[in-house]
This record gives sequence, C-alpha cells and structure tokens, in this order.
Amino acid sequence: MLETQQNEIDVIARRSQAAWEQWAELGRVRRADAMRAAAAVLDDAADELVPLALAESHLGEPRLRSELVRTTFQLRLLADTVCDGGYLDVRVDHAAPDWPMGARPEIRRWRVPVGPVVVFAASNFPFAFSVAGGDTASALAAGCSVILKAHPGHPQLSERTGQLVAGALERAGAPAGTFQVIFGEQAGVAALRHPLVKAAAFTGSLAGGRALYDIAAARPEPIPFFGELSSVNPVFVTPAADAARGEQIAEGLVGSFTLGAGQFCTKPGVVFAPAGASLVSALRVRELPAPAPLLNGRIAELYLAGERRLRAHPAVQVLNEGEGALSDPPAPTVLLTTADAVIADQRSLLTECFGPTVLIAEYTATEQLLEVAAALDGQLTATLAAEEHDAIARELTAVLVTKAGRLLWNQWSTGVSVTHAQQHGGPYPATTAPGTTSVGTAAIDRFTRPVAFQGFPVALLPAELGDESVAPRLVDGQPELPRPSAGA
Amino acid sequence: MLETQQNEIDVIARRSQAAWEQWAELGRVRRADAMRAAAAVLDDAADELVPLALAESHLGEPRLRSELVRTTFQLRLLADTVCDGGYLDVRVDHAAPDWPMGARPEIRRWRVPVGPVVVFAASNFPFAFSVAGGDTASALAAGCSVILKAHPGHPQLSERTGQLVAGALERAGAPAGTFQVIFGEQAGVAALRHPLVKAAAFTGSLAGGRALYDIAAARPEPIPFFGELSSVNPVFVTPAADAARGEQIAEGLVGSFTLGAGQFCTKPGVVFAPAGASLVSALRVRELPAPAPLLNGRIAELYLAGERRLRAHPAVQVLNEGEGALSDPPAPTVLLTTADAVIADQRSLLTECFGPTVLIAEYTATEQLLEVAAALDGQLTATLAAEEHDAIARELTAVLVTKAGRLLWNQWSTGVSVTHAQQHGGPYPATTAPGTTSVGTAAIDRFTRPVAFQGFPVALLPAELGDESVAPRLVDGQPELPRPSAGA
Repeated sequence: MLETQQNEIDVIARRSQAAWEQWAELGRVRRADAMRAAAAVLDDAADELVPLALAESHLGEPRLRSELVRTTFQLRLLADTVCDGGYLDVRVDHAAPDWPMGARPEIRRWRVPVGPVVVFAASNFPFAFSVAGGDTASALAAGCSVILKAHPGHPQLSERTGQLVAGALERAGAPAGTFQVIFGEQAGVAALRHPLVKAAAFTGSLAGGRALYDIAAARPEPIPFFGELSSVNPVFVTPAADAARGEQIAEGLVGSFTLGAGQFCTKPGVVFAPAGASLVSALRVRELPAPAPLLNGRIAELYLAGERRLRAHPAVQVLNEGEGALSDPPAPTVLLTTADAVIADQRSLLTECFGPTVLIAEYTATEQLLEVAAALDGQLTATLAAEEHDAIARELTAVLVTKAGRLLWNQWSTGVSVTHAQQHGGPYPATTAPGTTSVGTAAIDRFTRPVAFQGFPVALLPAELGDESVAPRLVDGQPELPRPSAGA
Repeated sequence: MLETQQNEIDVIARRSQAAWEQWAELGRVRRADAMRAAAAVLDDAADELVPLALAESHLGEPRLRSELVRTTFQLRLLADTVCDGGYLDVRVDHAAPDWPMGARPEIRRWRVPVGPVVVFAASNFPFAFSVAGGDTASALAAGCSVILKAHPGHPQLSERTGQLVAGALERAGAPAGTFQVIFGEQAGVAALRHPLVKAAAFTGSLAGGRALYDIAAARPEPIPFFGELSSVNPVFVTPAADAARGEQIAEGLVGSFTLGAGQFCTKPGVVFAPAGASLVSALRVRELPAPAPLLNGRIAELYLAGERRLRAHPAVQVLNEGEGALSDPPAPTVLLTTADAVIADQRSLLTECFGPTVLIAEYTATEQLLEVAAALDGQLTATLAAEEHDAIARELTAVLVTKAGRLLWNQWSTGVSVTHAQQHGGPYPATTAPGTTSVGTAAIDRFTRPVAFQGFPVALLPAELGDESVAPRLVDGQPELPRPSAGA
C-alpha cells in the first residue's frame, strides 16, 4: 500500500475543513440517513470484506462476521443518537430580571461539532475499531469530518472499507472530503499536527498512544487527544466465590483471556485468587485452547518478548501452558505468582501483555485485595467474582470505582457491548481522557463543544434552540422531554 | 505571606486524597448543605472581606460587594445542581437478549468525582475566580477535594477566605483537608505535578496558563488541565446597526471596555465597524471615564507595554484617549486601524491587551467581516451588533460558532451571568479544554468521570443507579424525569 505523502496532508486537511461545515449543516436527519446508508453498504459487502480481513488479521471468519455486524450496528445506533438529540445538551435560560446575582440575560446553549478529526485505527478490531469503527462513527455523528489513518496491519481492507464508506456517504448527500483515509505513520503525524485538525482519537499501544498524545499537546494550538492505551483489567475472586464455583470461574476465565487469542483491550490480565483456591487447581489441569496465530508478526514478537519477561520474573511460575506457548503461533499460558509479589513489583507484573496469557496472583488475606486495588494504575475494567454477602465486595467496589471505567460483577470484561450506558475508558494509562468513553452512544460527546447564544433572535438560531422542544433539554434548570411534533 | 514549602505539598496532597473519598461519600444532600454553609459564612463576613479585597485589588467597593454576592450565589447554585443530580448523567440499560449486535448485559452508569483537584486562582476576580470561586465551587460540588493555589495579588484576602471556607465546610461535616490553600508559584507547580492530583483548573494569562498546561500534559500520568487563558472578544458592527444606533453602541462599548478598568477576560478588545461609521465619530468625541488603578503594579506594567506596542504599530492611530493614558493609573484609550491591517497582521493586532483599551478596525465591505472571522483564533465570546434583517448576520454567526464559546446579539460580553445555559470557554487560546465551561452549572462536569457497573446487584450500588428514579436519567436510551419520592 502506498503511503500518503506528507505534502498531500495539507490538501486533505483543507478538503476535510471544507467538508465538515457542510456535513454539519446537512442537519441531523440527513446526517443520520447518510450514516445508515454507509452501514447498509458495508453489510452488503460482507462477502467481499470478510475475506480481506481474514487474510490480513488471522482472526477467524465467525469472529470477523460478528465484528462487522457490531460495526454496522454501531453506525446505526449512533445515527439514532443523532436523531434523539440528547447529546446536544440543549439548555435554555429565559431572561430573569430577578436572578439573585443580578438580572439574567436570555441564553440558549447546545453542542456543536469541533471540526475535522483525525482517527488512528487499531490493529485488533479490523472493523469495529478501525476504518468504520466507533471513533469514526461518533465523530461523523457529531457532525465532524474524519481523516482516518489506516492501521498498517490491514491495508487492503482499510482501503476498500474507506472507498465504500466515502462513496455511500457522498451518494447520501455528504460533501466530498467528509471521510478520507490516509496511510503511513508520518502521514498520521502530519495530520495530527495540521492546524485545521481539531481533535484526535486513537486505540492502540501505550508507547504509540503516548507519543501521539505528546504531539497533540505540544501543538501551538493543543487539541484534545482521546487515546485508549493500556489496561491489565484485574479480576478479584473472593474466597466465597471460589468456594461456590471455582471451576466455573476457571472455565469463564480461560474463555475470556484466550478470546481472539488474547488480543482485546479488555482481556483479563491478572486475577487475584485465594491461596489454594479451587480456581487455581482447576486452571492447573484444564486443557487450554489450541495455539492461534496473532494479528501479525510484529504483535507476535512483542507478545513473546512480554511473555518471556514475565516467565523470567523470580516470583512467577508457569501454572499451565499449551504446547508451543513460546512459539509463533503461541499456545495460551497461565502463570502463577503471589499478591505480595505484585504489590512489590507492579511495574513488572502489572504491565499489559497483549496476547493469550494471564497471571494468577494468590492472596492470603482479603485485605490484600484492598491494598492491590489502591495501588493500581488506571484501568478500562475491573471485575469482581464475588457473592452478594461478601463483606469485601463493597469495600473493593469503592476503591475500584476510582481506578476503572467499568466494573463487572461475575461477568467477563471481554466483549464490550455498544449501548447507551456503556463506558469504555478510565484513568491513565487506560486512556488519555478519563472523562470520556470510546464505546457507546456517549462517545459522540468527545467531538462536540458547547456554544451559547445570548440575546439572539430565535429566527437566527437552529430549531433545537427555539421555543419548541424538539430535543430533550434543560429549561431554566428543569429537564424537559421533547414534545411530539404536531404531525406526529 | 509565607510561601508554602515544596516539601509540604506531599502532606497536603495526601490529606486531600484522604479527604475526597469521605467528602464524596457524604452524599449529595450533605455536600450541598456544606457548600451552602460556606456561602453563608462568606456572606456574613462581607464587612471583613471586602476591605481586604479593596486594599489588595484596587477594585471599587460596589464592584467587590457585588462580586461577593455573585460568588456565594454561585456556591448555592452549584449546591442546587448537586441536589438535582442531572450532572450525574445516570444511564441504565437493562439486559436485552435481543440486542442486534448480540445479547446486551445490564449496565448502569453515572459520573463520579475525579479526586483531588488543584485550582489556580485569578488576579482579576478576587472573589469569583479566586479562593471560593467558580472552579472551587464546581470541584467541591462534583465531590472532589480542592488544593487552592492563591493568587499573589491578594494574599491576605486569600488566606482569610480560605480559613472561612475550610472552617465552614468542616463544621458542616466535611473531612479536614477537603479544602486547603497554598501560596507560591513553586508550591503550585509541585501540587500540579503531585501524582495524587487528578485535574487542574486555571484562569489567567496565556503565558502562565500554557506553561502549566505543558506541565500537566508532561506528567507521567497526564491530567486534564482546564485553563482559561486569552481572548480579544471581537465585536462586529453591521452598517445597518451603525446607521440605526451608532451612538448608543459607542456608549455601550465604552461602558464595557472600561468596566473594572478593562480587566475582564471578556473585555471587547477589537471592534469591526464600517468605515466612516457614526460609531467611530461618536467614539472620537466621547468623554472617556477617569483613570482607574489596575489590580497591581505587574498588571499595570504589562498593560502599558502592550498599549505602547499597539500604538507603535504603523497601521494604528489614537482615536481618543483620556489624560494620562500611558501613565499608571492609565486613562482609557480608543485606538483606530483598518480591517485590512488586522487581517495582514493578526499576531500584533489581535493579541489580548489586559486593561482599558480597545481597537476599532474599519472595514469597507461586509465580506471582510467573514474573512476576519474565519481567521480568528479561539475566543471566549464574539458579539454581533446587527439588525435582524442583516444578510451578513446569519453568515457571520455560522463562522463565529466555530470560533467562540459564547455569541452575543446586541449585548456586551462583560458581566458573565452564572446560569444553567452559560458557556464560558472556547477553542484555544481562549481555553485549553474547548469541550468545557468554567462558569455556570455545567462547570461541574469537568471534575467528574463516568463509571459503568455491569451486572451488579442493585444492593451494592448507590441509590441513583437503582430502580427508583431519583435523578434525571436515560433508561434504555429514553430520557426519564425523576419521580417524586413517596414522601414528597
């Protein structure tokens, strides 16, 4: 695949700038329709796209087909969100001469798109976190144009997906340039640095994401950088849960940490289990899934280096491994250590190892769980395998709320549903923007900013800010639901 | 005033960390009550505080009294916002086996406080953007603890206000350490760098704010930095508006740009007027207010240097000035240039000059207004003095929406009301976080982050996430108003 030349980036950025204002002006209904048209085109092209993805990612066909379903569902759900209009956060304050701090003028506020956005695609979800993935869908939904930097792991798929999406959007009335795909690391950096670009989104590694974050922050005009970087997704198993269903937890854990060959941002990477747990016994003897090829040679190399580093740690031993655990493709591995060792050397033992490995850390007293939790870096998820009567569960929850974006109760963190209440985010290094999510309908908020109109004639304002409620809004501080229009 | 020593910062940060978890756990009603108690104590101390502020700021007594009213009103309005609970953005998705992308688990999401926050106080509002100002009020409202770095311009007032607020909060049940005041630039930087601090807010200069932003972004764990830095707040006067009421606009402008001796973030700094406007004639002959002392010697020095730089520009002439315009205290000045000159040399002519000066830029065709607007940096405000039938007004509004946080129609930008719909923010350099506001009830959002609970027993969750609606929320994607409780 030819790399986009740096001198092309200025043309691409200007095209993106020209496009987004028209794209936003199409209005919410036409924008939503264009997104639905893009979803339909991708669905129709499944038999062309899935083989491309298969050849470039080594992920299995069933997984890729369901990932494409997820991707087009996401485009449609965000199109619905655009129509609902709640994300606009419309607020109307009528003039109030008796406002206690002094007469209040009339102010009407909503959220507008920020402008052109650069999205860096991920390797591990060639559909759902890539060209037409969640970041693209939420930026387009907000009314932004998108410059998509393709991941080098699946260039053919990226190019074809990009053509299909751009074509569908244009046929549905979007201006040319609403969606553009670029290739190559240097092109991505040049786009991130371009003055017309107003925000960026990224899913990938800690090193790569931090480097791009630093570039965004060092611009003459710094811009928001929504990066999803790194998480070990700790699991806390209480003695009561282990006693009640240690074997079942072992089964679920193996399914979760080997799903997609362990290449999920939300893969459980470390599990705290009571010393001598039946979970540990079950994991020792359980047959692990067969080796599965990783996404590409570079990922396999990084995984094997990380896995070797963990095994070389003096406090770590191998609890169970498939044949060829240190080969490529690697068989899954279960490693064993102690909670004390984790507390003593978090830097080595709580670093994400992207691939089919999990570290079990045995604890001797439940208080250690609180100590571990308090010492954690930011996480995308934290999971409790517990019983409702567990005294430790409430205390642990209170600590984990300060550390992770999503807490799970007796469920597994892999498989992130796209919903209204979903939260895929968390304090650094899970993300560079802990106040936001990159999955779910709230993901749209990242690409908007509030603008208030003071004293404007209603005729000069968009319908959403007028006197009829066409979207949920806050009127003089009171929440108000949209009223059905006269025609409804 | 003794500066806080850097080695004290670790103790202060740990105290802040210990406090915030308890402060958040007090619950919304008690937290709101504590904030109202702090407001009451400040109101009661007006006769002590206003003279302190007067001695340290040179702002007049009426202004300082009304600023204190604004400050305590703000604490109370944010306390009400805490009780309303809309800011929690509660979302409940029930389990849905038929969710199109695959069975949906139950997810319940709300926003939690981020942790200890450092607030850098401003010089120009010794009450409202200082110790007990908007950033403090919104961080406390969110459930965060606050380390307040006092502004060196009013140390005695800061110390006393800090004592009163901390005392009132503690008496109302807040843990010690919920609110702490520190002094000195190095102490502020040390606090900003402290690993326990999770966000920072700042109102001040471009140079100072950018330096702190860079420090926040370069931390091993970067944190959100909500800085409000610099704005020239352009005003666009259409020919029709000038013809209809040029003199009246001149009168309003003089009131606005000299208010508080021009020391407002929202001071109109540049006004685009038709060549030969009656506005310009009126400004030429209008008597300007008397000289007023600036906040302190440093501000006066910076102002006079900036004013001299503007006057030395070859395209700038003095349209009107009071006697002693280049002395300290300075008399107000009205400067004159052309829109072409502004377009040709924005860097010189569109740089904020903090103090009683305004630049009038004459244009010869209304299209120039669109050109100027498109070239603007980010702004806190942009103002139209226009008539509803002006064709240019709609076009100009569309461009200005992309540049400013608040647009005004035939009103003046100074005097920012604290309301539900207010937006005090904008693209860089107006702020470092264009998606947020530092004034109004939405300011609380900056200090929260979302957390989702998947599959949790309701008994382990806060009431807000339970099955009774006690706050506005989104249930399965549908907005729902709180139901009155049984006792109501």
